Amino acid sequence: MSDIVKIAGGVTAAKGFSAACTEAGIKYKNRVDMAMVYSKKPCTAAGTFTLNVVKAAPVLFDKNVIENSDHVNAVVINAGIANACTGAEGYKICESTAAAASEALSIDKEAVLVASTGVIGFQIPEEKIVNGTKVLATKLSSDLEAGTAASKAIMTTDTKNKEIAFSFEVDGKKIVVGGMCKGSGMIHPNMGTMLAFVTTDAAVEKKLLQKTLKEIVGDTFNMVSVDGDTSTNDTLVVLANGESGAAKIEDENSEAYKLFAEALRKVCEYLAIFIAADGEGATKLFTANVINVSDKAKAKLLAKTVIQSSLSKAAIFGGDANWGRFLCALGYSGAEFNPDKTDIWITEGNIENSKLGMTDLSKYMENGLKLVEGGRATDYSEEIAAKILQCEEVIVTCDMKEGNESAVAHGCDLSYDYVKINADYRS
Amino acid sequence: MSDIVKIAGGVTAAKGFSAACTEAGIKYKNRVDMAMVYSKKPCTAAGTFTLNVVKAAPVLFDKNVIENSDHVNAVVINAGIANACTGAEGYKICESTAAAASEALSIDKEAVLVASTGVIGFQIPEEKIVNGTKVLATKLSSDLEAGTAASKAIMTTDTKNKEIAFSFEVDGKKIVVGGMCKGSGMIHPNMGTMLAFVTTDAAVEKKLLQKTLKEIVGDTFNMVSVDGDTSTNDTLVVLANGESGAAKIEDENSEAYKLFAEALRKVCEYLAIFIAADGEGATKLFTANVINVSDKAKAKLLAKTVIQSSLSKAAIFGGDANWGRFLCALGYSGAEFNPDKTDIWITEGNIENSKLGMTDLSKYMENGLKLVEGGRATDYSEEIAAKILQCEEVIVTCDMKEGNESAVAHGCDLSYDYVKINADYRS
Repeated sequence: MSDIVKIAGGVTAAKGFSAACTEAGIKYKNRVDMAMVYSKKPCTAAGTFTLNVVKAAPVLFDKNVIENSDHVNAVVINAGIANACTGAEGYKICESTAAAASEALSIDKEAVLVASTGVIGFQIPEEKIVNGTKVLATKLSSDLEAGTAASKAIMTTDTKNKEIAFSFEVDGKKIVVGGMCKGSGMIHPNMGTMLAFVTTDAAVEKKLLQKTLKEIVGDTFNMVSVDGDTSTNDTLVVLANGESGAAKIEDENSEAYKLFAEALRKVCEYLAIFIAADGEGATKLFTANVINVSDKAKAKLLAKTVIQSSLSKAAIFGGDANWGRFLCALGYSGAEFNPDKTDIWITEGNIENSKLGMTDLSKYMENGLKLVEGGRATDYSEEIAAKILQCEEVIVTCDMKEGNESAVAHGCDLSYDYVKINADYRS
Repeated sequence: MSDIVKIAGGVTAAKGFSAACTEAGIKYKNRVDMAMVYSKKPCTAAGTFTLNVVKAAPVLFDKNVIENSDHVNAVVINAGIANACTGAEGYKICESTAAAASEALSIDKEAVLVASTGVIGFQIPEEKIVNGTKVLATKLSSDLEAGTAASKAIMTTDTKNKEIAFSFEVDGKKIVVGGMCKGSGMIHPNMGTMLAFVTTDAAVEKKLLQKTLKEIVGDTFNMVSVDGDTSTNDTLVVLANGESGAAKIEDENSEAYKLFAEALRKVCEYLAIFIAADGEGATKLFTANVINVSDKAKAKLLAKTVIQSSLSKAAIFGGDANWGRFLCALGYSGAEFNPDKTDIWITEGNIENSKLGMTDLSKYMENGLKLVEGGRATDYSEEIAAKILQCEEVIVTCDMKEGNESAVAHGCDLSYDYVKINADYRS
């Protein structure tokens, strides 16, 4: 099989995709706050959305498009106002936005997705978003820089723009999968204000694309959490336009499918870990690696509970090897296990390596420090522990010694700045 | 029926109970860190304990005593080390402690309960706890002050000692139910490092006492949360010694039972709300009142999810009427409901009134401010909202308009000090 190689760019890395951004003044002043992603060639689209009962208007709108439209050409995104809890009026704003894009781009209005992020409960000024959409249509560019600018336009409390692209070859044709996302708080995807957009020039059969996306989301976006709050706006959309010229991917057993699914997984994993590392107020990426568990679902539950524990997060922030909090969190996860068999290790990680899937978690013994053996403290060096806990990524490995399944979850530490950012977010 | 009246004192308010405390030097220096509660007359005992898979040695020890002993005379408590994740050696410390109490007090060693709170993973110095137990046995006093001193001895990050007592009359006999507890962080009882001890001079049949306690815990201790972390040490024990001279309570339909159950509920509610209000770093009590729900379990789930939401807690700290976070939390609770029907009110509360069950939650309309009607913002005054949000207790009422059930949950805001306390708790 071909190698899957990291390449430059994000949503415009794949052939046939262009992007634009503009200052629409929707909430922020003097800030670029709208972006558009566009493919002239119609795209097969798949999406996963928040499972929050309270769904933002764009989520309801996009679910309808993904389910009922046979193709998508454009996505229009705004930052500043989430268009959530805005009723029928909010939904109408989505329709107006799509209609404006349809007219400006000469595409079907059923081929437009919309996405919003920001404060809940306020209406988006219709004139501003419609005008912004029209401006975006005139500024589209397929340059990599245009993708990067779009990834900056959709930021809210994010401190870094988030994009990634990978490529591989099938039958001599180069296929690219690239994406961008935003998200820093209200991050506990159960599909956060998390928006992610992935583009590919592969041609992929629609049902297969949706199925593949859903599987991958379970291991990537749904395994990160900043604060346990599942947003009303979580949206992940994949657009596949087939511009690579490679044959349509329809068979799950084909090499092309396996490469595509792996590249899509890498994009999702990269973006998901980036969100956790850039969690509101985060100073460290906090990774839980739960190994040797009797079943996969249980491994995921255990891993996710550890990175969600406020006390564990505060200990990571403080650089305190308070392993009792990790074990305590495993204990209240809802999973049954024998605490007297549990070993716990901490290992220094590297955020970029983790995002790229290059961290070899099996090396936790070689590179790590064992804090707990059989549920009890080892005679570990507090000095070495403190050193590991100062790193940009702390990997906590919990060896449950009961089976062969494992899971990894990513979160961040709980800092003063998380409180500061969220005590006064609206103003 | 007799009135249930708040009276002075805590665990020594009921007839026949005495208490003591001492400086045992278990972890803290120059601090009283052990307490004992004792009744010469054998007590019927009931208890509820943490459901964390990782159970501290004293929890395992006490569960055995409560299940298998026909009476209890004493409880020995230490603060500083939790005796959790300490294996067989930790359990042996419980046995040594009970043996020391048994000898010093001339009681059965099966009639001694032990409880610990503090850091996880360290062994309690056996000599210190055994010596401390012997000293406690010589200092027992039935004065109200002795109960108060005991409630101070068991504090860790608590800023206030927590005790309460109520009395009522049955057939001319005065019956007292009093209690004390500690707990400030790792508070998400699922039965925190939460320890609560209730004493009564009522005589109550054992199975009925256990059944009553379990029911009450579901509505009181299990409806508070500081940080979502369920401790390894949660313990609530009720001791009933019958010293009031009133007839033994055995019939659920009797007036005496109803009064006793109500008094026990009041004690548990007072202590549970006190824990939430004194949550680590808390500046406000955050109460969620979810009303008009189709069933009780759903109402509880909704109320508890709101007070657990980090973003809602940070908004309460910041005094920001960011109601979208409350509605968002309802939405990811796991309960189904129609967000387009939901109204949300905020009302100024009074912590002492809430603890005493004197807050009339039906007055939320009269005294409150409606922020949301039918899932959308009302034209509320941000100025009035800001004023309510500065109070010592903020009550968020969510009217689901779908049924007749309701539930109340208590938490606290998320402040800089929560992070500070927990970034460096061990040192």
